[in-house]
Amino acid sequence: MAKDWKSKLHEVIYEADTPAGKLFDLVLLVLIITSIILVMLESVTEFSDKHGELLNIAEWVITVLFSLEYIARIISIRKPTQYIFSFYGIIDFLSTIPMYLSFFIVGSQSLIALRALRLMRVFRILKLARYIGESNNLMRALKASRIKIGVFIMFILILCTILGSIMYLVESGEESGFTSIPRSIYWAIVTLTTVGYGDIAPGTPLGQAIASLIMIMGYGIIAVPTGIVSAEFATMDKNDIDLNTQSCPHCATDGHKDNADYCFHCGESLHPEETD
Amino acid sequence: MAKDWKSKLHEVIYEADTPAGKLFDLVLLVLIITSIILVMLESVTEFSDKHGELLNIAEWVITVLFSLEYIARIISIRKPTQYIFSFYGIIDFLSTIPMYLSFFIVGSQSLIALRALRLMRVFRILKLARYIGESNNLMRALKASRIKIGVFIMFILILCTILGSIMYLVESGEESGFTSIPRSIYWAIVTLTTVGYGDIAPGTPLGQAIASLIMIMGYGIIAVPTGIVSAEFATMDKNDIDLNTQSCPHCATDGHKDNADYCFHCGESLHPEETD
Amino acid sequence: MAKDWKSKLHEVIYEADTPAGKLFDLVLLVLIITSIILVMLESVTEFSDKHGELLNIAEWVITVLFSLEYIARIISIRKPTQYIFSFYGIIDFLSTIPMYLSFFIVGSQSLIALRALRLMRVFRILKLARYIGESNNLMRALKASRIKIGVFIMFILILCTILGSIMYLVESGEESGFTSIPRSIYWAIVTLTTVGYGDIAPGTPLGQAIASLIMIMGYGIIAVPTGIVSAEFATMDKNDIDLNTQSCPHCATDGHKDNADYCFHCGESLHPEETD
Amino acid sequence: MAKDWKSKLHEVIYEADTPAGKLFDLVLLVLIITSIILVMLESVTEFSDKHGELLNIAEWVITVLFSLEYIARIISIRKPTQYIFSFYGIIDFLSTIPMYLSFFIVGSQSLIALRALRLMRVFRILKLARYIGESNNLMRALKASRIKIGVFIMFILILCTILGSIMYLVESGEESGFTSIPRSIYWAIVTLTTVGYGDIAPGTPLGQAIASLIMIMGYGIIAVPTGIVSAEFATMDKNDIDLNTQSCPHCATDGHKDNADYCFHCGESLHPEETD
Repeated sequence: MAKDWKSKLHEVIYEADTPAGKLFDLVLLVLIITSIILVMLESVTEFSDKHGELLNIAEWVITVLFSLEYIARIISIRKPTQYIFSFYGIIDFLSTIPMYLSFFIVGSQSLIALRALRLMRVFRILKLARYIGESNNLMRALKASRIKIGVFIMFILILCTILGSIMYLVESGEESGFTSIPRSIYWAIVTLTTVGYGDIAPGTPLGQAIASLIMIMGYGIIAVPTGIVSAEFATMDKNDIDLNTQSCPHCATDGHKDNADYCFHCGESLHPEETD
Repeated sequence: MAKDWKSKLHEVIYEADTPAGKLFDLVLLVLIITSIILVMLESVTEFSDKHGELLNIAEWVITVLFSLEYIARIISIRKPTQYIFSFYGIIDFLSTIPMYLSFFIVGSQSLIALRALRLMRVFRILKLARYIGESNNLMRALKASRIKIGVFIMFILILCTILGSIMYLVESGEESGFTSIPRSIYWAIVTLTTVGYGDIAPGTPLGQAIASLIMIMGYGIIAVPTGIVSAEFATMDKNDIDLNTQSCPHCATDGHKDNADYCFHCGESLHPEETD
Repeated sequence: MAKDWKSKLHEVIYEADTPAGKLFDLVLLVLIITSIILVMLESVTEFSDKHGELLNIAEWVITVLFSLEYIARIISIRKPTQYIFSFYGIIDFLSTIPMYLSFFIVGSQSLIALRALRLMRVFRILKLARYIGESNNLMRALKASRIKIGVFIMFILILCTILGSIMYLVESGEESGFTSIPRSIYWAIVTLTTVGYGDIAPGTPLGQAIASLIMIMGYGIIAVPTGIVSAEFATMDKNDIDLNTQSCPHCATDGHKDNADYCFHCGESLHPEETD
Repeated sequence: MAKDWKSKLHEVIYEADTPAGKLFDLVLLVLIITSIILVMLESVTEFSDKHGELLNIAEWVITVLFSLEYIARIISIRKPTQYIFSFYGIIDFLSTIPMYLSFFIVGSQSLIALRALRLMRVFRILKLARYIGESNNLMRALKASRIKIGVFIMFILILCTILGSIMYLVESGEESGFTSIPRSIYWAIVTLTTVGYGDIAPGTPLGQAIASLIMIMGYGIIAVPTGIVSAEFATMDKNDIDLNTQSCPHCATDGHKDNADYCFHCGESLHPEETD
């Protein structure tokens, strides 16, 4: 029956509980990594000049395989539009189409670098493994500090706009790279985040004094996101530690301390077989 | 009645409880952001050369609107001096005046970049929204570590003065940029904060050895403000977690643990309807 | 008896409980540090041009002493293969052989720089001292956050691949150093980790805007590993503080609070001699 | 009596409980800061060329005042050697002598930059103020993590030696600045601490790959000292919060929780006047 065949394909492609599903995910992961290495090698001119023919063939093999996967995904799902317009659906389309487009539009091949976005699929595939717990913890911590981090980033951007404008006024006469306000804001971000490329650096004593203030400020500001996330992690881990997996044999309450002998809820012994 | 009209204007401009007040704040925010984008574009010479006429007109429109807002603020408040000499009053004045001054003084137009300071108004406007809670937490954490951070910054400045002086002695003969003590102190701050522009970098082996020590020191020192703020956040969040919103139905004490069944103050059950 | 002589040698070389063993370890440590300073000096051309002869002799003395140590280690151990193919066995071999190889293969002497790897032996030697407790704590904290850190590094690598590919598309036309995707990924790592060499820096406004986003992102991301390790340390230290070394004289339970007077396990007094 | 006069001078110079002592400390602090600003200005060639005569006179005034202070300190203390060979005694001597030496030895004047070390006296003076509590907390936290930080710095230095040696092998052929192992170690420290000057940067793909690994490693490693100090601060602050200043009116035990009503030691009420 066609329907049976489709639902089996769906199980292999979209799920990962069966051996076939796991194998499919693994092959896909290897294929994605291979395709990204190919794109990287192609961008290295010394390499692509020598092995251009080989790279082109490999590129086409990958493209055909990705096309087959894309078609299989559309066929096997009940509502194809749900996949096509999903986040991964669009990425899959964008990483397959450039090779075909290169027949019609010269230069569209460079869009193939977008294939790196497919790497994000690794997170979906890894969801299957034990990493899920850890990833979830990370996500939960980041999610819980969502608003705090948002306020913080807005604050940083406004601060950099103000600092950049001031530095533009101070340094605009000099030949130190502060040629426009957007460039000065870019410099303020480079400095405040302690990246410090050095492509733009203050030349006047006043500019250097202001830059010093910004750096020390940045030193203190870097503590804020760290403090937010640390606190989030600390409270999370604490809960994991304080509460163990024991549950009272009498009233089934859990969340006891690691060395508790009596239920904090009903007062019954947690180890009846031992005490009797 | 004139008084009524004024107090209504005051409500719209200075408060944000009414729909009109909210709308005013929103329009003002959009206007400020537009004016800042205009200032940015004007500082980009490629753009201002092409669209100079357009930018000039837009600049005047913004300036007139800001002037009207400034006048309205003075009229509607009972004690105009209270606003004029307040922090925001001075910023509003400084971001409006440069265009008028440009008639008399050539070059005063560049002061228009100070308009970026008006962006700080965004914090006052956002106070209305739900961000207040989060901002307050951030502020409280920073306020609580105020003295610690002050001592820390003073310590950093003294350390950088000493390190800069030593590096000036060591590297002054070389052509590596340590031409004066203030410049060497600037370098010490750039290094200790891990910004590292590279415009000044030690050239002698001894200078590089001292620089290495400073960097490792900076690595350790960066932990201090982070530790201070983290601890502050941790204790704050902890209090939020340990204490729940329950209050004893008997003696009205609150601050119970999440899984408490009996009031820690009077010993009565916290869930009388359940236990009976 | 030969066996006795061998076991004594084993005790001196492999253990550190006896005075002779401690002395051997100390001499070895001094020898390793000396050999590394020699290798360093030899790499400084100004120095090796002047004192080349002296360095060569010292190098041979060290090599002979290391050879004797290597032979002694093989002789004194019961199963020589266990040592030869161990981590330290391979390092010891690699740091001794280059001088002998230099007779046959020109240039193999440069491999002598690998001798720096022998420095890791310092950790084995220091295990004997009081540092063990502290090192163990560090190791435990890192081990406990092993998976979290692994997920985090994988995430960073994927993020840098994506960001590098995007920057390659944006900046590939410019002469700002983004000549290939691997180089762009290298730049993304340099930026996200806030190192910021400046050898590659975005030149286009769009590139600088994306770079600014990456930097602010990196600012937030740096908080994640810090948060993980901080939380780990915090929970560890907490346990060290909450639990003291007292144990109940009645039921021998330990882990009491610092100011507890009665055993939380059996209810008997913890200080019978005081209360009676 | 001469003795009385000396002990009064001692009180003014060495202590800060009396108004005269406070005034002396304040005047000294102003004098030190003035002298440092003078030294800074002298190192700026544009300034010292113009106002050289003025600077010379001011320098001599400061030197004479420092000399008088030095003599007064020696006279007023019972055991002059105790002060002369103390840390501050040596610094005071070194910051006074260069001007006198400049009569005999040309160029010794440059040692005057060491006067910056006198700034450390600010910590001694500030000990008198309310900052003492905060400073102590910082010091306690750093002291408590002393060994951990020591092990960590040793680990960093060994790691940088190994990484520097490897990079020297990889990049020694290139013209990217890795001319010797010490320079490569310096680069490794610059990279691992995320300073990143860019005066030395890897040129080969292999070198850039290793550098990327080092940077990501450094990203994780920076978490360690932060984690250590954070945990230290967290446990400290926690203790300050959990324990209040109440003490049992019956058995005088303190360290009760903020909302405790009964003594955890003897079971008596903590608020007898309220409950009766």
